Amino acid sequence: MEQVLNRETLKGSIRSIEDFPKEGILFRDITTLLKEKRSFNYVIDLFTEQYKDKGISRVVAIESRGFILGGAIAHRLGAGFVPIRKPGKLPADVYSRNYQLEYGEDSLEIHKDALESGDTILLHDDLLATGGTTVAALDLIHRFGVQKVFISYLVELDFLNGKDKLKNYEIFSLIHF
Amino acid sequence: MEQVLNRETLKGSIRSIEDFPKEGILFRDITTLLKEKRSFNYVIDLFTEQYKDKGISRVVAIESRGFILGGAIAHRLGAGFVPIRKPGKLPADVYSRNYQLEYGEDSLEIHKDALESGDTILLHDDLLATGGTTVAALDLIHRFGVQKVFISYLVELDFLNGKDKLKNYEIFSLIHF
Repeated sequence: MEQVLNRETLKGSIRSIEDFPKEGILFRDITTLLKEKRSFNYVIDLFTEQYKDKGISRVVAIESRGFILGGAIAHRLGAGFVPIRKPGKLPADVYSRNYQLEYGEDSLEIHKDALESGDTILLHDDLLATGGTTVAALDLIHRFGVQKVFISYLVELDFLNGKDKLKNYEIFSLIHF
Repeated sequence: MEQVLNRETLKGSIRSIEDFPKEGILFRDITTLLKEKRSFNYVIDLFTEQYKDKGISRVVAIESRGFILGGAIAHRLGAGFVPIRKPGKLPADVYSRNYQLEYGEDSLEIHKDALESGDTILLHDDLLATGGTTVAALDLIHRFGVQKVFISYLVELDFLNGKDKLKNYEIFSLIHF
């Protein structure tokens, strides 16, 4: 008998790995969910259901795990796809935004011709942790004068309170830890 | 009037950028195709049409541009999704494979529980250049005893003759330069 699919069983299909990428971190590994056709398909159905009536014109996804579901969601919504990438990866003129990491800093880039002010955006990433990456991505998106931005994650780590940095946004996370 | 969509107009929607990532390279930038909903949607339809009757059970895609279309194609085919990543990114036990770059070398990894010997695989990447990355990815896939592997690319650079390294495989590239 095949396992029933719901958000609880989806959560159970995520593997937890201790001390990755460094000591003290419990890493939530989504590859065990993605590799099973039923759970992968079901996840995309749930995101599609959530956003199908929102008029999303472009899905913006963050390198690189965000690309996996971001591409599939964009396709199901009939939207265009726009990548936000690490420095030096995008070949044309970019907007760039630094952000703080626990130690040091990193930056994100988006092509200057990627969006239009009239777009309705779904920003997608696989994981909401502290929210620093998302804040940087939103800053890039708003440089285009975009008014409406929805935000989605496959996994949200509630105990890190990333949502506190994102109070003006409608956020949908499929799985919570 | 909206532009007619066919493989020729898709090719025209790819931007060419000189001297990126280094002097002498003419970089084919697919972001200009991906961001337009009609061309992005059409590309996924064409890949789906190509593979819908092949019994693909898992799509394996190569970090990170390969993830964008790979995720959407897997979804449309009702298949699972498996990432091949750069070293140190996958958290559980991995198979690893070095390969030569023009200068130096790099390596790719796949989780040891990612595939099963009975899988029918579609290996997807955005670009076929010299074929070195694909050969390394195929080596990883065959460690699972997989018998049937199809290969697809969005863009193939014909003048680099990457196909010469892949003679035993059925390859489908949507756009040729």
